[in-house]
Amino acid sequence: MRGGIDLGGTKIQAVVVDRRSKVLGEHRMPTPKDAGPEGVVWALAEAIRTAAEAAGVEPGALDGVGVGSPGTVDADAGTVANARNVVPTWEAPVPVGTGLAEELGTAVHLGHDVRVGTMAEFRLGAGKPYRSLLGVFWGTGVGGGLVLDGKSWTGRHAAGEIGHMVIRRGGARCPCGRKGCMEAYAGRAAMEHEARRRHKDGHKTKLFEIMKDRDRTTLTSGVWARALDRGDDMAKDLIERAIEALGAGVASACNLLDVEAVVIGGGLGTRLGDEYAKRIEKAMLPHLFVDDNPPAVHVAALGDLGGAIGASLLVPAVRPAGSGARGR
Amino acid sequence: MRGGIDLGGTKIQAVVVDRRSKVLGEHRMPTPKDAGPEGVVWALAEAIRTAAEAAGVEPGALDGVGVGSPGTVDADAGTVANARNVVPTWEAPVPVGTGLAEELGTAVHLGHDVRVGTMAEFRLGAGKPYRSLLGVFWGTGVGGGLVLDGKSWTGRHAAGEIGHMVIRRGGARCPCGRKGCMEAYAGRAAMEHEARRRHKDGHKTKLFEIMKDRDRTTLTSGVWARALDRGDDMAKDLIERAIEALGAGVASACNLLDVEAVVIGGGLGTRLGDEYAKRIEKAMLPHLFVDDNPPAVHVAALGDLGGAIGASLLVPAVRPAGSGARGR
Repeated sequence: MRGGIDLGGTKIQAVVVDRRSKVLGEHRMPTPKDAGPEGVVWALAEAIRTAAEAAGVEPGALDGVGVGSPGTVDADAGTVANARNVVPTWEAPVPVGTGLAEELGTAVHLGHDVRVGTMAEFRLGAGKPYRSLLGVFWGTGVGGGLVLDGKSWTGRHAAGEIGHMVIRRGGARCPCGRKGCMEAYAGRAAMEHEARRRHKDGHKTKLFEIMKDRDRTTLTSGVWARALDRGDDMAKDLIERAIEALGAGVASACNLLDVEAVVIGGGLGTRLGDEYAKRIEKAMLPHLFVDDNPPAVHVAALGDLGGAIGASLLVPAVRPAGSGARGR
Repeated sequence: MRGGIDLGGTKIQAVVVDRRSKVLGEHRMPTPKDAGPEGVVWALAEAIRTAAEAAGVEPGALDGVGVGSPGTVDADAGTVANARNVVPTWEAPVPVGTGLAEELGTAVHLGHDVRVGTMAEFRLGAGKPYRSLLGVFWGTGVGGGLVLDGKSWTGRHAAGEIGHMVIRRGGARCPCGRKGCMEAYAGRAAMEHEARRRHKDGHKTKLFEIMKDRDRTTLTSGVWARALDRGDDMAKDLIERAIEALGAGVASACNLLDVEAVVIGGGLGTRLGDEYAKRIEKAMLPHLFVDDNPPAVHVAALGDLGGAIGASLLVPAVRPAGSGARGR
């Protein structure tokens, strides 16, 4: 059995899976915001312990635990740096790997969250039929993962920043500080920024009402989905703007790489589902150079647990104990 | 010895090279425009015959001839289709490979011009120190070639269309019919279109004077270079606009792929050289997500002969006759 943890800015999702990646136990908890990176490492351990308990196994008996993390992940050193969307003070490298391995008594393997999610979709999810794949994670930001000829393409460690492809030179300000990035139109953080600006300028919207009703302080994917359901004009307009941006950016990536398929994941991607993936597909079409052979577009199939299951794939395959000697 | 031919819209360049890709003979001639695709095949044969003569070898004695062609190249079938910038009526597949092989009495291997040029720079030119490379061919259009982990990446046959990455949604009309593509600002055809429009509107420029002085009917790379030398304001402005577009588009590609190096080739790229490659590098910087680790940017090192030398690399390496049996 393997463990997998998806570390996010708002939640920690842990799973324990069998050799076929079937989920045997899982646990979800909010990401602790007030106890620094050390508090997060403690929470990761707690999450996997609870998932292991649900699966009826001791954490120390797992073949290993994989962690998909945002920020700058150094898998060899077992550290994570620059994970400011997890804990605002998280800048210097934190030894997440060794800390967690000590807590759990098993090996820990780190990976970059978006790549881990893309690899999970490639091996187990919507990307299974294909050899080349672009994963688009539409959430707070817009992350990208690449599988080319069956292998993760990471460049010099930083490939996949599809959210910062320029779709409008001199356009809207992106949370990254640059202008005209796809994420400046399609990232949930940028969309919220724009919604607050319009709301302040007197434009009507139910977005912030729904946010308060749900006891939230930010516009979560659920808030956006509910506002769309209720026919909120501002929500519809900003989502349409995001879809047009995604269409141009994802089509540009496809013009460059000509991958077989695009898998749309992330908080907004999975929450809004097929209907909106179809709209992104349609928005890509006017920008695709070879428009008579577009890539397949799918919603991520592993849903909310995809990141954690993907992280569990970071654990190298272990031959079951004694399978050679005692077999048959 | 191997032959290589670069088939372009205005010229045919042929080389004969030795096993180390050293040029032993070469010939250059204008692409015949009035005799249909068959006339082009005849001219290809003529070009390689003349280059072979210069190298002191019979065409039939060559290990093979590679041809880098625009359009839709089917290497297995030996055909080229949709090469309208070579001959306007060239739409259906033409058996360039078999036709030329019959004429020459040696094997012919077809490849896509931009990919062939990128592979040449990777193996013999400015890309030699790297394992991953983006080739940007800045000419009539803007073509792209990818080498990832030492291998040409072609996707589902159509990868590399960097010129049709969107850098300004809803922006200028591209020769491809779409809007806001990088090529709509940076391709020489689009630049000429814009120059003619401005000139007609009464804006002053020496571009068309220089064109006539040189007995040209279009704004060639040489015409642009001369106008820049003479300080022509419209030329400076349109080149600056092209560089800004290239900066955004090439940086976007690098954000997605994080390649080690970018090689700038093509008519304008090689003609304008280092000074302008530096300006493209500078224009990329504001859009690079990991701006403290930018890719290296180089001008294509093989220059005018790069396409033809690259095409010669399509010929599989041949063990010198008898090298095994008669050796030592």
